[in-house]
Amino acid sequence: MAIRARVLIFLGLWLLTSGVFAAPDLRVEPPNWWVGMVSPNLQLMVHGEEIGQSTQVLVNSDDVRVAEVHRAESDNYLFVDLELQAKAAPQTVELQFQKNGKTLARHSYELKERAQGSPSRQGFSPADVIYLITPDRFANADSGNDQIDGLSEGLNRSEPGGRHGGDIAGVIEHLDYLESMGFTQLWLNPVLENAQPDYSYHGYATTDFYAVDARMGSNQLYRELSLDAQARGIGLIKDVILNHCGSGHWWMDDLPFADWINFSGTFSPTSHRRETLRDPHVAAVDQKAFSDGWFVPTMPDLNQRNPFMAEYLVQNTVWWIEFAGLSGVRVDTYSYPDKTFLNKWSQRVMLEYPNFNIVGEEWSENPAVVAYWQAGKNNADGYRSFTPSMMDFPWQKAMVEALNNPEAWGSGLVQLYEALSNDFLYPDPYQLVIFPDNHDMSRIYTQLDEQDAHWQMAMVLTLTMRGIPQMYYGTEILMTNPGTDDHGVIRTDFPGGWQGDDVNAFTGAGLSKKAKGAQRFLRQLLQWRKGNEAIHHGKLMHYVPRDGVYVYFRYLDRSAVMVVINHSDEARSLEPAIFSERTAGFEVAKNVLTGVSVTLSEALSPMGKSVAVYELQPE
Amino acid sequence: MAIRARVLIFLGLWLLTSGVFAAPDLRVEPPNWWVGMVSPNLQLMVHGEEIGQSTQVLVNSDDVRVAEVHRAESDNYLFVDLELQAKAAPQTVELQFQKNGKTLARHSYELKERAQGSPSRQGFSPADVIYLITPDRFANADSGNDQIDGLSEGLNRSEPGGRHGGDIAGVIEHLDYLESMGFTQLWLNPVLENAQPDYSYHGYATTDFYAVDARMGSNQLYRELSLDAQARGIGLIKDVILNHCGSGHWWMDDLPFADWINFSGTFSPTSHRRETLRDPHVAAVDQKAFSDGWFVPTMPDLNQRNPFMAEYLVQNTVWWIEFAGLSGVRVDTYSYPDKTFLNKWSQRVMLEYPNFNIVGEEWSENPAVVAYWQAGKNNADGYRSFTPSMMDFPWQKAMVEALNNPEAWGSGLVQLYEALSNDFLYPDPYQLVIFPDNHDMSRIYTQLDEQDAHWQMAMVLTLTMRGIPQMYYGTEILMTNPGTDDHGVIRTDFPGGWQGDDVNAFTGAGLSKKAKGAQRFLRQLLQWRKGNEAIHHGKLMHYVPRDGVYVYFRYLDRSAVMVVINHSDEARSLEPAIFSERTAGFEVAKNVLTGVSVTLSEALSPMGKSVAVYELQPE
Repeated sequence: MAIRARVLIFLGLWLLTSGVFAAPDLRVEPPNWWVGMVSPNLQLMVHGEEIGQSTQVLVNSDDVRVAEVHRAESDNYLFVDLELQAKAAPQTVELQFQKNGKTLARHSYELKERAQGSPSRQGFSPADVIYLITPDRFANADSGNDQIDGLSEGLNRSEPGGRHGGDIAGVIEHLDYLESMGFTQLWLNPVLENAQPDYSYHGYATTDFYAVDARMGSNQLYRELSLDAQARGIGLIKDVILNHCGSGHWWMDDLPFADWINFSGTFSPTSHRRETLRDPHVAAVDQKAFSDGWFVPTMPDLNQRNPFMAEYLVQNTVWWIEFAGLSGVRVDTYSYPDKTFLNKWSQRVMLEYPNFNIVGEEWSENPAVVAYWQAGKNNADGYRSFTPSMMDFPWQKAMVEALNNPEAWGSGLVQLYEALSNDFLYPDPYQLVIFPDNHDMSRIYTQLDEQDAHWQMAMVLTLTMRGIPQMYYGTEILMTNPGTDDHGVIRTDFPGGWQGDDVNAFTGAGLSKKAKGAQRFLRQLLQWRKGNEAIHHGKLMHYVPRDGVYVYFRYLDRSAVMVVINHSDEARSLEPAIFSERTAGFEVAKNVLTGVSVTLSEALSPMGKSVAVYELQPE
Repeated sequence: MAIRARVLIFLGLWLLTSGVFAAPDLRVEPPNWWVGMVSPNLQLMVHGEEIGQSTQVLVNSDDVRVAEVHRAESDNYLFVDLELQAKAAPQTVELQFQKNGKTLARHSYELKERAQGSPSRQGFSPADVIYLITPDRFANADSGNDQIDGLSEGLNRSEPGGRHGGDIAGVIEHLDYLESMGFTQLWLNPVLENAQPDYSYHGYATTDFYAVDARMGSNQLYRELSLDAQARGIGLIKDVILNHCGSGHWWMDDLPFADWINFSGTFSPTSHRRETLRDPHVAAVDQKAFSDGWFVPTMPDLNQRNPFMAEYLVQNTVWWIEFAGLSGVRVDTYSYPDKTFLNKWSQRVMLEYPNFNIVGEEWSENPAVVAYWQAGKNNADGYRSFTPSMMDFPWQKAMVEALNNPEAWGSGLVQLYEALSNDFLYPDPYQLVIFPDNHDMSRIYTQLDEQDAHWQMAMVLTLTMRGIPQMYYGTEILMTNPGTDDHGVIRTDFPGGWQGDDVNAFTGAGLSKKAKGAQRFLRQLLQWRKGNEAIHHGKLMHYVPRDGVYVYFRYLDRSAVMVVINHSDEARSLEPAIFSERTAGFEVAKNVLTGVSVTLSEALSPMGKSVAVYELQPE
């Protein structure tokens, strides 16, 4: 009764003070929120003409309290701190912005109900294999969105750096293909609005952090993709950019604070000297040049030391996870934002979703640098991260060099062995994402000089090694970028994704025999991997390569997988006693690709340039 | 009175039981000990025919207790655990070995008084510069020891790998030279007996852990060297080999235990895969192949898991420190002995001498691997070391590559900058020993392709960078090994060390103008370094190289040194504001080599290929 009375009184006041004239259009971000989040706090960024002149903000619900209101330096912003009651019901509330008792504007704001199991959702894990798609280049299922009013860059398929028309509908259309291949996670390069005049297909110049680019589809379609994929056992990973926005971002003409963008909004290039973040001898000027510098003039560098920017980015990530039912996020240029912010951001995201996964991109060949950012690392400088996974660039480089280099004392597979021995630097090497290539480097088949045997080894290594494998679309059909490392060529259109394509890799029509064989090889491995517990959860034990042969095991208490890679040109014979620490208790090894079994008490005799995956079977 | 009575009774028993017949010759190691050590325990290794049959060991002093007697597998060994009273006086005790009441042998054993200040001795530190000498190749002052009865390998100066006759007397003779140059520590490659049939000049195949090789001098002469050096402010660092002995070691014909030597005394080569020590995925067979494997057939690999061997090596190190008054030890092939033993060994040595210094040789380019062994490193696997310093091989490699490579985004001086940024891995980078070269690699002048400007940069870098500098003899006169990396050539005789040498680098007679200039340059830097507190104790701050110019500072609260290296070919002009974090409060920078001062508010204008060291002076 008491509560009811208070609401009535409040409604009375509300009606009395609601004489609104020429109310400005308001943009409120996040556009909605949810009840039942771990954090009761929500900071709204409100943008509208002179909205900053509000002296009071009212909200018509007992479940929501206006804790504090902050003016910005621009008159057109207001930051409103709301506090949601722990037991708040889903509802739409009305916000009223008043200036000296006069209402400047009203805004309906929805607090939704969370999806079942949302907080405890399982992030991508070593049981998964991630398929990375550059969505402009995969499949164009909706030609109706190729050209959009208000987005100046239209279709130009003849240009490697132009927009080719691929879209979210195209991905949805081919989920059956991904499922049939055996992928269980899908990472799309960014799909948010990139209202840039040109070179926007890659998606890394966000101009609206809350809207999917209309040329890609819509927020709803993105959510549909996520739900459709989920129904097939495939999770969706969002590509998140915390470091910068696009120069066409709506706020660039009216920044809330002078320090919203680093170097006061003026282009000053980053030094790319990531080592300045850990260097005990660093000069402040060098640290600033790295962290605050911009990538390119079209990507203004966000200042996460501004607390409103920091909160904006935290909430934006949480919003997309909750809205689209994501299973993970991949963080672009992980080390470039302010590192104190990264600590806070990763902590906040993992607090909301304790079983979630985040993978950061730190393109360094130095495992000590990559390890610095992984959750659980007790860095000597006291820095802590909550990001469970990192992209394993050191592994990628070592793997390719190991395969490309001849076998010698310090060359060949031992380079991969050595790289893995550095795993002592990581709090959890099993959580790293490993990959033969990605959208920023040459295609793996090109990197391996189109050596088929080496490509097979690379695939087996990626799919059986410790870590979470990630494959780039087209790897399964040996896509290449011969003679160039132009990104537009690397990100070639997937054959079959466009009407009238001569070749259709989805159906196999027109695909070369070699490409078909590769696709079959990978499908077989992927489908087998899906069901293998030792690969999902088993430890790794590996042996120093002997005469060009690298042998390693993934093992649980009662099951084990043995991988044998003979990188040399000659057939080899391996003394079985060497491996007894891992083969004890097993009698035969069954080749998972050929079905042929060998007896473990006899010498292993791998042919030259061969790779085999065995399941060990008990006596 | 009571004590006297007990001694008399003991003496009585002693006389009654002392009917000795045909007593065997005993070798007892350590040959003596000292009273007043931190550890009250002493384990004697006693070797003599059938001495293992002793049923009792008596000692004629109340200050010493026989705590336990251990038989070995060979009948000719006995390990006797003594316990020394805390207040024991210096004395010579008699040990009596009895079998069923019958005396087998007696042995006089001296417990000496420790030198004043011995426990608190100061080890080598960043205030020092170490001069490394291969003693067979420095100076032959005593031709009388060139050929020694019982040591089969004699003088053969015509062979690069033969013995050239250099000796400890030769080093003593030239201490004035080392002092005049400005070196404050002296590290000699091993001088212990190497009674090997050939290739023994390097000293790394110890055949007696308690005796200086007679071709080098004697234990007494080694001690004399140490005391004479000390009088000139120069400390002596011993080269200690814990991993192996020489195949000519006296015990090889009569091992106390079958497991005294790894692989039961049979040659099995080490894999040299040091990564197996830290690799979380390692197979036991690979770890054993590294740790237990031998270097070469002539160097049997000691098994430090045998507790008597472990104790033997600990005591041997302590014995030499105490006997010779050492200021430090350098540990050969640091990671090759058993790693649990290394933990114990380093802890025991540092317990006896808390201010001492130990530097380990771990020849890896990976700073994470080197850092693993430094005292204070909290390794994730729980491993702890007490060794304060390590040889900084990653720095050496980076320094040479930085100077040899052209300036570009990822090449040139930035390679050194990057290497130093990895210092976050070390618990104390200031304690690392840095060096342009050593006895196992090409001469620095050769590594730098005899580029004089780069050699000067290398010298300045070594003498002003964080760490403890070490120079190899002959660096000061630009010694080279053109066209070969034969160790015997690298370790060429120092000119002037042999009677009749055409050139004498000690006096300068016959020395080329260029070599004289190099020697002068280094002497000037060394002498200046001796008195500079900012170099001894100051922090390092360095700046990302700009246009091929690397600038760094060593600084204390009120003093600073600035080093400017222009590795590019052109003159550069550096904006002074860049360095304001370190130049604030100073007005002028005085070049320590030329005496010329520059004003800090103006642009720094280093000439192409130049290096300058400045002392900053207050406003």
